[in-house]
Amino acid sequence: MEDLPRYLAIARQLEALLDSGELPPGSRLPPVRQLAAQHGVNTLTALAAYRHLEERQRVVARPRAGFFAALPGADAAGRAERPTPSVATLVDVESRMSNLIRLSESPIRQQLHMAEAHNSLYPALELSRRVQQTLARQPELIGAYLPAARQALLHQQISQLAAEWQLDIPQDRILFTGGITEAISLSLRLLTRPGDTVAVETPVYFGLLQTLQTLGLKALEIPCTPDAGLSLEALEFALRHGAPVKCLVTVTNFQNPTGALMPEDNKKRLLQLARRHGLPVIEDDVFGELYFSGAHPPPLKAWDRDGDVIYCSSFTKSFAPSFRLGWLSGGRRHADLARQRESSSLVSPALLLGVLSDMLASGDYARISQRIRQQLARQLDQLADAVLAAFPRDTHVRRPQGGMLLWVEGPEGLDSRQLLQAALTHSISFAPGLLFSAEPRFGHCLRLNFGQPWSAQLAEDIRLLGSLAQQQLQTS
Amino acid sequence: MEDLPRYLAIARQLEALLDSGELPPGSRLPPVRQLAAQHGVNTLTALAAYRHLEERQRVVARPRAGFFAALPGADAAGRAERPTPSVATLVDVESRMSNLIRLSESPIRQQLHMAEAHNSLYPALELSRRVQQTLARQPELIGAYLPAARQALLHQQISQLAAEWQLDIPQDRILFTGGITEAISLSLRLLTRPGDTVAVETPVYFGLLQTLQTLGLKALEIPCTPDAGLSLEALEFALRHGAPVKCLVTVTNFQNPTGALMPEDNKKRLLQLARRHGLPVIEDDVFGELYFSGAHPPPLKAWDRDGDVIYCSSFTKSFAPSFRLGWLSGGRRHADLARQRESSSLVSPALLLGVLSDMLASGDYARISQRIRQQLARQLDQLADAVLAAFPRDTHVRRPQGGMLLWVEGPEGLDSRQLLQAALTHSISFAPGLLFSAEPRFGHCLRLNFGQPWSAQLAEDIRLLGSLAQQQLQTS
Repeated sequence: MEDLPRYLAIARQLEALLDSGELPPGSRLPPVRQLAAQHGVNTLTALAAYRHLEERQRVVARPRAGFFAALPGADAAGRAERPTPSVATLVDVESRMSNLIRLSESPIRQQLHMAEAHNSLYPALELSRRVQQTLARQPELIGAYLPAARQALLHQQISQLAAEWQLDIPQDRILFTGGITEAISLSLRLLTRPGDTVAVETPVYFGLLQTLQTLGLKALEIPCTPDAGLSLEALEFALRHGAPVKCLVTVTNFQNPTGALMPEDNKKRLLQLARRHGLPVIEDDVFGELYFSGAHPPPLKAWDRDGDVIYCSSFTKSFAPSFRLGWLSGGRRHADLARQRESSSLVSPALLLGVLSDMLASGDYARISQRIRQQLARQLDQLADAVLAAFPRDTHVRRPQGGMLLWVEGPEGLDSRQLLQAALTHSISFAPGLLFSAEPRFGHCLRLNFGQPWSAQLAEDIRLLGSLAQQQLQTS
Repeated sequence: MEDLPRYLAIARQLEALLDSGELPPGSRLPPVRQLAAQHGVNTLTALAAYRHLEERQRVVARPRAGFFAALPGADAAGRAERPTPSVATLVDVESRMSNLIRLSESPIRQQLHMAEAHNSLYPALELSRRVQQTLARQPELIGAYLPAARQALLHQQISQLAAEWQLDIPQDRILFTGGITEAISLSLRLLTRPGDTVAVETPVYFGLLQTLQTLGLKALEIPCTPDAGLSLEALEFALRHGAPVKCLVTVTNFQNPTGALMPEDNKKRLLQLARRHGLPVIEDDVFGELYFSGAHPPPLKAWDRDGDVIYCSSFTKSFAPSFRLGWLSGGRRHADLARQRESSSLVSPALLLGVLSDMLASGDYARISQRIRQQLARQLDQLADAVLAAFPRDTHVRRPQGGMLLWVEGPEGLDSRQLLQAALTHSISFAPGLLFSAEPRFGHCLRLNFGQPWSAQLAEDIRLLGSLAQQQLQTS
């Protein structure tokens, strides 16, 4: 008991009073300040005790009235009070990403709508031990800045890791960022001004559409297929016809949402094309480390002799989502990006950088990312098989060779937005196709993530999703 | 030994060979790949072993040649090779902050140039234990997003903490950011377009000048005194005469660099003035929690009934520098800022948010921040006394009532840039006054931080700094 946090100790005492009926259902509980005074703790601690009991559905908070002992059956009632998100609000380009995040916060049971794997794929216990060791051994990591020698080591490690991906990244051309989102946002802010146009793939990650919108940028959508990724023919056509494009953002390895892997030849050709047209390229390689066989496919950047490519990567999907450690190598724009980063959010948390460095050194990173890859590869097959078995005829999927996203192309008549509305009533979510373009396209498609461990429940939910799709086609 | 990381075990074996002379001084050590193969580890682990020995000055890395056993006396030689930073490069507005950070990475012994307290003021061991507990108990904190219930608790805690500062911050108006730097950068990006003018204090935090420069903004510098902070008279004059100012950035509590605390009456008047002129205010309260007596002084935001103030705060100075957890409450612009944040860097590391929440609940935060305050208050007196005793006559300081910065106004003839150049040769740094304005001002001033624990060495260094200043005045 001795290391039980105070708030938990207080919560347990209250729970005993609730159990015994001394605090009967529906009764008003002591105000936070009074509870704090009774236990000689500050109000934050008292509040935490109530919040803990609220999470356990033993107490209910009523705005401006305080906390009350929960009534029997309050569990279901409490859930029902939280609104089911409306599909209509998802479509607004400016808030697409934000609205999807809200969807994650809702009590939906089977969440397949984000590009996220389940928490259980990541090594929480190993990380907790490692963080403790790292900080205990290196208390200087409490400071705001990673000490110079530690930073040199980390950059050397990243350079060496990237060398395994065929990248020649000098140690002084590595910049850590707040996830890959910040890497891409910084790059866009450097390369564009409000009103400019940026070439992107279509279908494309809705977070990128929101970012462009926020920065006042227009998207020129270049077709992208699950087979080969970005269509170079379409891009070349656009550039030849003078599309006023300031830069290109491309996910070359396991594209979001299609899962496409751009062939190496196309990568080389894209680079030549970009060079010929003076087009800077922002390469988003957040999924590259999640390859299922062989090795991390070489990014576009591997053939970039002239520093035209701003290469962006991250440890968020492949290692530790909660660390939010992205990084970029900015080619000839690196120094400008570094200065911009210092004006935007200065540095990444030194403690987390130190832990990453320790886990790269110990081999933990290699082992853990390998385990995650293997599990994702298994889950992909399970999910893809189930989808093909359950969904209407003429549903197509192309199994990606990495990543965590499955792009499902339904029959032309399918309306995946309507399907989502139906699925939400069964507490199942996915990302409907129309989120992946600023234009009204991909309405018959949906994106699922295969980051969830396979289970009887998931199998059942996919069967249900398939039969909802079948029903929709029959009644339409 | 069993939980010794592999790279350390390898490093110790190598060190034994170095000690025994089996690997003689100057000899070439096995290439990284070979060392890795010998020990059955990956190359990152082998590299980390060498880096560890390099930090201990037992081996030397030579670019493109590999690692070599260090020669006797290589320690001093290694140090001497690192260049002493040149003062000339510090002045460039665009890179001021970046250059000061470089200065931190140099081997200067007595670093007084940043607004940072010494690592020992912060609870590295307590945090390491708490991080371990938090993640072990709540493995869901490995995920990219803080679970909704945890986020609700954290926001309630922040709201309650802010209430102690006289702030009424609704729980749905709290947005975590990457340090306060991101909070201010987001606010500026929302309120301005390149080419706009922003009112700031003068002298002002050089990081803000760099941020403005990076965003293509112009600074209108409004006088600020150590006694009362921003001059409302000067601001009103500027506004009356039609200065085209898009917003104001102000540090109302323990301003950087002057340490000024704006009187409450001035805060109320400033708010009225801003409202009258339709001037949005970005309030930077990063130092407010480091008050030395009484309580956290109420920020400007405390009187903001109309949501004109974007309030920015952070736990970086007062609690855990390496966490980089800032936050803002955006008044009527909050929703726009939230959307912008999601497009800029999405979210803060969930693990660190969870630990903060646990430490707010347990009372650890209150206890730790109290201890830091007390230590800073003692160190201020020690430093200020020493400065007054050592520096030339007509040197003025005004002891701030909080924060960690002492603004020293030397006699008019003092050239603090030249003083810094002299001090650097003695391995002492500080921030010279001219960094705190885009115009050539404050050349006779310097900013010291009193975040360093008092010691005989620090006393000696301040005496030396004072006598260097005396010498300069005598020879000029």
